Amino acid sequence: MENFTYWSPTEFIFGKETQKKTGETLKRFGAKKVMIVYGSDRIERDGLMKEITDSMEKEGIEYVKFGGIQPNPVASSVYDGIAKAQEEGIDFLLAVGGGSPIDAAKAMALGLANGGDFWDFYSKERTPEGAYPVGVVLTIPAAGSEGSGNSVITNEETHQKISVRYPMCLRPKFAIMNPELTMSLPWNQTANGIVDMMAHIFERYFSNTPGTELVDTYSEAILRDIADRALTLRINPEDYDARADVMWAGTLAHNGLCGVGKEEDWASHRLEHEISAFYDVAHGAGLAVIIPAWMTFCASRNPDKLWRFAINVMSVNPAGKTTEEIIDEGIHELMSFYHDLGMTTNLKTLIGCEPDIDKMVKSLHRNMGDILGAYVPLTMDDCKEIYRIACEQP
Amino acid sequence: MENFTYWSPTEFIFGKETQKKTGETLKRFGAKKVMIVYGSDRIERDGLMKEITDSMEKEGIEYVKFGGIQPNPVASSVYDGIAKAQEEGIDFLLAVGGGSPIDAAKAMALGLANGGDFWDFYSKERTPEGAYPVGVVLTIPAAGSEGSGNSVITNEETHQKISVRYPMCLRPKFAIMNPELTMSLPWNQTANGIVDMMAHIFERYFSNTPGTELVDTYSEAILRDIADRALTLRINPEDYDARADVMWAGTLAHNGLCGVGKEEDWASHRLEHEISAFYDVAHGAGLAVIIPAWMTFCASRNPDKLWRFAINVMSVNPAGKTTEEIIDEGIHELMSFYHDLGMTTNLKTLIGCEPDIDKMVKSLHRNMGDILGAYVPLTMDDCKEIYRIACEQP
Repeated sequence: MENFTYWSPTEFIFGKETQKKTGETLKRFGAKKVMIVYGSDRIERDGLMKEITDSMEKEGIEYVKFGGIQPNPVASSVYDGIAKAQEEGIDFLLAVGGGSPIDAAKAMALGLANGGDFWDFYSKERTPEGAYPVGVVLTIPAAGSEGSGNSVITNEETHQKISVRYPMCLRPKFAIMNPELTMSLPWNQTANGIVDMMAHIFERYFSNTPGTELVDTYSEAILRDIADRALTLRINPEDYDARADVMWAGTLAHNGLCGVGKEEDWASHRLEHEISAFYDVAHGAGLAVIIPAWMTFCASRNPDKLWRFAINVMSVNPAGKTTEEIIDEGIHELMSFYHDLGMTTNLKTLIGCEPDIDKMVKSLHRNMGDILGAYVPLTMDDCKEIYRIACEQP
Repeated sequence: MENFTYWSPTEFIFGKETQKKTGETLKRFGAKKVMIVYGSDRIERDGLMKEITDSMEKEGIEYVKFGGIQPNPVASSVYDGIAKAQEEGIDFLLAVGGGSPIDAAKAMALGLANGGDFWDFYSKERTPEGAYPVGVVLTIPAAGSEGSGNSVITNEETHQKISVRYPMCLRPKFAIMNPELTMSLPWNQTANGIVDMMAHIFERYFSNTPGTELVDTYSEAILRDIADRALTLRINPEDYDARADVMWAGTLAHNGLCGVGKEEDWASHRLEHEISAFYDVAHGAGLAVIIPAWMTFCASRNPDKLWRFAINVMSVNPAGKTTEEIIDEGIHELMSFYHDLGMTTNLKTLIGCEPDIDKMVKSLHRNMGDILGAYVPLTMDDCKEIYRIACEQP
């Protein structure tokens, strides 16, 4: 096991009706004037916004609204948000929704606290000194952003989708998580979220660091539970306990717990980011295509953890099978699981055309350099091969 | 699943040589003058104290030492510590050792911040407004106190051993955890710690709350790993990765992660506290006696979770066995495991005499009221029966 620091200071307020605690929680954290950052008008229509603002009015907290954050949030929304926040003199950002408004609010928080161009912290030209405080009311469990110090923003001018990790300043102060709010999600959003949170564990699980049995075994337990609960939700989307497990698993998948003491990978996420940056598909949908292709590419090059994954997570019976067969069956079980969720694992089907692999890999190279990932360090030629495998998958 | 709040703000700094970061960490948390609270002189002899104080001197942090905290820390030590801290004008408490100095430092932190008699917060006559900041250098993984808001103090005058939970003010600011520091522990301390941390999970795992599959499955994974690693350490006490897993598991067992959304039990801990209060045995040693007896008592009254425990944690093969047989085998496997660690599971053997069960239950009644625990709510007569079972165990 490698040395690590684990610091997850976010207060998670979890359960039924918890959105009504937004006002008292903001007050406890010293908020005076809040900008509510959100995406679609669904939260207005379904009454969630009113429950939140009522709870704030009750505590005498002022607020302004900033809606319209799109999936794969873009830099221009962040600039607009910063301008509005400065104009209104707010002191706290409340993201309502899933990863997109949370990541956008975090980007605004960096810009507001440090001045200058917020994009500098994504292009790594500057390191932030701090950030405005961010709170969350989570309605889409997926990104894990409610408990992480990460943020992903797409710069639509440069076609760059860049992920940053500033855990010391970007972890939300609190996250209010009511699983009931996720029951009315369109199924594809639930499915995308499930793929994404499992991928957050994969990126940490597939590692060459020796001696990490504890974290590996609880990571496997979380992965198995997400998969079980996903299949329950496919039949009954209103199963509260399944919604609750999936929501909590989404947080644990990305708050650092599953990565303690390990070298992490993140190649699959980087490979996916190019797909969603160029073809505007949902991040989870892109991952369902990339992850099996990445596993297939790695199978012969570094089989150990893939073998263990097949048996301990995908429940492959190893009796009488070669390592190669066990891994192959594990990957196919994972693809079957994605298909059961209603997703495709074929890149061409996903984007509806032949991908421009050269363009994607050129962008990947610009964003990430010569080598991607750690479980199997990938050259840019390897990345091309993984995109090609993703085009051939069932 | 029940609603819950999970807040674990402690910064865990984990790995080799991390004790040398004590000074810079204290500085980061604003400490100016620190009281180092510890137990035996072992930490002076083995050079740990010097490494810690060197790192503080390097950062210009003043310190005073307060040693001599005994296992099952007593109220008189806390009063002495508070007096010394006031005299010296310290602003930060650094506990070095295991649960005893940490719990004592927390009690001092309550007394220092609130004035008056610190025992009021244990007898529940007052609720604390806050506490002085506490940091930890952990050398004995067991109590989980490095990440919890709990503290247990024994009042030697009243023969009361009382546990309190004030998570909003008592969670340590940071915990420095170097598994190497645990390698030289006498084996019985390692074994006691292992029993204690597994018990911290049992108290949360054995619950009647429905719909808690995720937390149950990762709790089982952590329990299995602790047991595996314990047997490795019995053969090779210097296995770093096994020490690291056990140390990290001890934190996860008690920082709240394994109890989210569940009604907890804690009857076994309360039953044990009377044993260690009256007969001055180590807490872990008392738990090795009480837990199997508690399980045996509960087996016919509430079998469900005990059945699952036997299969998923103790690896009992259920084929062709009745529920009763499966549970019985699980309890016997657990006792065998304790025996493999070199511990007794017989109460009379542990304390070296016939226990005064009436006296213990009278004290239990005074401390806890009429009913103990939740998985099977225990009357005082039930508690007597459990102590009697503990006297008859192999």
